Amino acid sequence: MAYDLYYWPTIQGRGEFVRLALEEAGAGYVDAARRSKAGMATMMKLMQAEQGTPPFAPPFLKAGKLTIGQTANILLYLGGRHGLAPAGEAGRLWVHQLQLTIADLVQEVHDTHHPIGTMLYYDDQRKPAKKRTAEFWDNRAPKFLGYFERLIAGGGGAYLTGRKLSYADLSLFQIVEGLRYAFPKHMKRFERDIPKLVALRDRIAERPNIAAYLASDRRIPFNQDGIFRHYKELDK
Amino acid sequence: MAYDLYYWPTIQGRGEFVRLALEEAGAGYVDAARRSKAGMATMMKLMQAEQGTPPFAPPFLKAGKLTIGQTANILLYLGGRHGLAPAGEAGRLWVHQLQLTIADLVQEVHDTHHPIGTMLYYDDQRKPAKKRTAEFWDNRAPKFLGYFERLIAGGGGAYLTGRKLSYADLSLFQIVEGLRYAFPKHMKRFERDIPKLVALRDRIAERPNIAAYLASDRRIPFNQDGIFRHYKELDK
Repeated sequence: MAYDLYYWPTIQGRGEFVRLALEEAGAGYVDAARRSKAGMATMMKLMQAEQGTPPFAPPFLKAGKLTIGQTANILLYLGGRHGLAPAGEAGRLWVHQLQLTIADLVQEVHDTHHPIGTMLYYDDQRKPAKKRTAEFWDNRAPKFLGYFERLIAGGGGAYLTGRKLSYADLSLFQIVEGLRYAFPKHMKRFERDIPKLVALRDRIAERPNIAAYLASDRRIPFNQDGIFRHYKELDK
Repeated sequence: MAYDLYYWPTIQGRGEFVRLALEEAGAGYVDAARRSKAGMATMMKLMQAEQGTPPFAPPFLKAGKLTIGQTANILLYLGGRHGLAPAGEAGRLWVHQLQLTIADLVQEVHDTHHPIGTMLYYDDQRKPAKKRTAEFWDNRAPKFLGYFERLIAGGGGAYLTGRKLSYADLSLFQIVEGLRYAFPKHMKRFERDIPKLVALRDRIAERPNIAAYLASDRRIPFNQDGIFRHYKELDK
């Protein structure tokens, strides 16, 4: 089955966690809103539907008759179909739980530059952004990334849940990449504390399907409109 | 099967979304960290485990051999077992998607009073809290609650997904209750725009198991340590 992925066409954003899973799985998909203006119009129309199951926000995935929204929910669906999550209930719930914890981290990263409101400009919230970013690096990043580091260490394998890759590993790759883009100075120091996570990032980058994707123009470069943004004054 | 629910003992918090589902289902459960100091100690120990599947944060549920963390993930598990979600894949994913959107809203409500950091006192972030709260009522609350209002209208039934109750309905009850506690003035005005959501809240409150729960001391009262907090200066 070929999928239609709907996401904002100019950023990696939350859509990227889905793209990485689709690419690793070698699944056929169309990045619909990127492909054409008609795709973008369809995306907006699907969200505004008065009936049925309109998603609240992108990303969402059309898979046959299903329209699935919320990043972690899409990955729950794809994981089972493409061998990117354990088949049993316990393992499936565990990987999903990890993905939801990653989603919480993603929100906190976003809020470093937009602590007051998504609808406002960064320039209108620079002072609180500075405070929130300090909080992030003092408390939140160590807590979240330390947790994942501990899991990799405890599992004794190459990946988050042990010897087998899951979609949560792909998402952690994106977390490390994104933090390196947004906070190169912070990360340079901080990576000493998370060697296993960095090694995981490297293993993912070397996987053939991921390497091919990263080298392609299907991978949108990081930029200043996404979740991970680089502001010099926030990276000291 | 009797469950052990682990959550901070003095607040409703995110644990409340799980409690409401367990109560509606009439499921046997122990609110472990509330029941005893030993329960609280077990909760901390489970989170700090170096091996296995330690949750990042409460709430989490012990269900036989499973330990399930992340509120929406717990509800995904309980929904299938207690008739609080559709049995088919499409319906199950849809209700989970709605719950994840509710989780996003919960985070935004929390951040109205803590926009800079969870580890800081409210008094250290009063000014940004005021701005974030204004943003919330100008943009975010209308967007989220308007979305759920539209879904109830479009489904044509008494509940979010039509004629059958799901755990997402129970969570929306909690959202309305919480917003009434935190922002009585804002809600008084705003409820005119969400009549179907308010009617849904009333229907949930009248369900026998929920009514019995709300009247019991198992329901912790709203207070100033939870997600929904009342600060006069934020409710003008």
